Amino acid sequence: MKKLNGGLELVPGYKFSNIECGIRYPDRLDYSIIFSQKECNAAAVFTQNMIKAAPVTISMTRKDNKIRAIIINATNANACTGDEGERNALRLSQSIAEGLGVNSDQILLASTGIIGQQLPVEKMLESHKKLLAKLSVSEGKNLPKAIMTTDTTPKAIALEFTCGSQKYRIAGTAKGSGMIAPNMATLLSFIITDAPIAKEELQKIFKEKIDSSFNSLTIDGDTSTNDTAIILSPANGTPLSKPEDLKEFSSALEEVLSHLSHELVRDGEGVNHVVEINVKGALSSHEAETIAKSVARSLLVKTAIFGKDPNWGRIACAAGYSGARVEGKKLSIFYDDIEIFHKGSPTDFKEEELNAILNKTFYTITLDMGLEDGSARILTSDLSYEYVKINAEYST
Amino acid sequence: MKKLNGGLELVPGYKFSNIECGIRYPDRLDYSIIFSQKECNAAAVFTQNMIKAAPVTISMTRKDNKIRAIIINATNANACTGDEGERNALRLSQSIAEGLGVNSDQILLASTGIIGQQLPVEKMLESHKKLLAKLSVSEGKNLPKAIMTTDTTPKAIALEFTCGSQKYRIAGTAKGSGMIAPNMATLLSFIITDAPIAKEELQKIFKEKIDSSFNSLTIDGDTSTNDTAIILSPANGTPLSKPEDLKEFSSALEEVLSHLSHELVRDGEGVNHVVEINVKGALSSHEAETIAKSVARSLLVKTAIFGKDPNWGRIACAAGYSGARVEGKKLSIFYDDIEIFHKGSPTDFKEEELNAILNKTFYTITLDMGLEDGSARILTSDLSYEYVKINAEYST
Repeated sequence: MKKLNGGLELVPGYKFSNIECGIRYPDRLDYSIIFSQKECNAAAVFTQNMIKAAPVTISMTRKDNKIRAIIINATNANACTGDEGERNALRLSQSIAEGLGVNSDQILLASTGIIGQQLPVEKMLESHKKLLAKLSVSEGKNLPKAIMTTDTTPKAIALEFTCGSQKYRIAGTAKGSGMIAPNMATLLSFIITDAPIAKEELQKIFKEKIDSSFNSLTIDGDTSTNDTAIILSPANGTPLSKPEDLKEFSSALEEVLSHLSHELVRDGEGVNHVVEINVKGALSSHEAETIAKSVARSLLVKTAIFGKDPNWGRIACAAGYSGARVEGKKLSIFYDDIEIFHKGSPTDFKEEELNAILNKTFYTITLDMGLEDGSARILTSDLSYEYVKINAEYST
Repeated sequence: MKKLNGGLELVPGYKFSNIECGIRYPDRLDYSIIFSQKECNAAAVFTQNMIKAAPVTISMTRKDNKIRAIIINATNANACTGDEGERNALRLSQSIAEGLGVNSDQILLASTGIIGQQLPVEKMLESHKKLLAKLSVSEGKNLPKAIMTTDTTPKAIALEFTCGSQKYRIAGTAKGSGMIAPNMATLLSFIITDAPIAKEELQKIFKEKIDSSFNSLTIDGDTSTNDTAIILSPANGTPLSKPEDLKEFSSALEEVLSHLSHELVRDGEGVNHVVEINVKGALSSHEAETIAKSVARSLLVKTAIFGKDPNWGRIACAAGYSGARVEGKKLSIFYDDIEIFHKGSPTDFKEEELNAILNKTFYTITLDMGLEDGSARILTSDLSYEYVKINAEYST
């Protein structure tokens, strides 16, 4: 497996387009296509939110078809837009399908941006001629930027892997931001490969690898109305079937998703510190997860991380109100490998060593509950002025 | 029932003291006593956090005794301080008890401030002479200020009420801040009265009135390690027993707690807007509460409130990921009485009318789920730069 110097544009068989349609703001790329020259098998994972945006509900009904394209817009989520929003999304995909000469049910959709506003559908329809005309391999370079909302950097990766004597490529992009506990912006991710994988294998492997990458960030229910991750793989030719080949593909996909999810965390809104909350010794894994979530979501913990403040008491407090079993006199807390609270009492740690950790961009807070062997890990981040600023001003 | 111009100092039979002990910071009142000249019945409500501070665990064992005093310190919570923290609290109450000539098990304790640091117990013991010497009626005026942490204003109220021909008084103080969803600082509240109420009645009425005031703010488990609310009532004399007298007392207590809880919300850390999240039409009350909590805790909702941003899509999104049953096409959302989302679609509301609401310091966001008749209300607030600043810098 080899990392390539580039992104989506390096995978044979796909073209891309990105334009400044002016969906919500002037002078920014906001409307894109990923087009496959061959019919594709798709696998997809969608938001668990009970409220699903129109592009999600439509894509859910189409994902098992032979897919030819994904159309993506940023700045408007087309969520909570009722029947009109659904009609708009259908009109857009119908028009693109005609332009591409494919069926409209071969088109998947994804949107991200403000919730509750109708898309400027006439303007978007008018832009389709330009959007289709711009289809090219090299536009794959611009797509990661075109799909961003509050992200500060585009995210993409491409790998080459070998099955027998055959070389294949896989590439992916993602946008997120603000997605770390406890609330997330829309997560969109698109992966393409020229390796042919049978539909069922593709879905199985994709789901498994998403679970161990993006889902470890998102924390169960805290998903936006629009979260969508899609992978495309050519449906023609003989699909890879040897276990070692599928394993090679699987590893490459894992590498792509792992890279993207780390990029997403680093680019969380106003994030200065990414902190892994590592709970062990809880009554059960479920209890450990409950504790980890409670700590990861605590505003007092998150502001203390931002303030580089060894206020680990807030950590104990958040564990204490999590609802899980906590015995103060059995609880120990560590920052990386420094134990600052040992079975219910503060320790004599060296303050300068602790300060060095608090200044790191990535560190681990471990809670050893001292009960049974339930464990869980979750990523969180600091809560900064910048976070408030970005999210208070985002829609206005 | 008559509101008096003052606070604790207006209730006959009690004395108070407040000193600058220098527990954590110089030049601030941080150590106080409420002393009753007679033995009192006490009723108390303590934190539900599994991790309880030393003053809480000690007070829990003493609350059924005939109480003579409450000692309170600010700036250090004496929480997560292990056996040493418990020994310290016992030594302090023992020393105060000796100074007052009462038994140490007649003393309740309350602390608020940083978690996980030992009290400067020798310094505090040395200060007791001064603390006891300063006992007076008029120091009741300073106590609300002495118990504050990040509060910006002291909170107190006194009322006079009549039972038959007898006039009684009741007064209370509280400190909180940051206590609105989703994380709270310590809530301490002390209520005193000269009306004699039997122990069981006192506990019953107090619990009931706390549930409908402070508990509606705190949201079940999200309590700090130190939360404590105590009421004292003289144990001598014939307790009030006529239903109309108990009702009068009960109303006065309700008025005191209601006043204090509104003051607490208004003084939440960095709070500019207090917003009631009103959920109706949910599958059940429990589901309504789940939705209300999810919305009240959403950082994206709270920052939008701060930004005066009608980003109600974030409200629908938070409802959608709450775990409760939500059907997008049955959901309606109101800001006060303006419906901005009607059964799944945005409405044509007047933007200037909505802006007027978004600028208010108190307004209501109503979610009508359109399912059954489950309902719940919860208070939340905006999340401001100021909140982050206060909590990032608090302990350092």
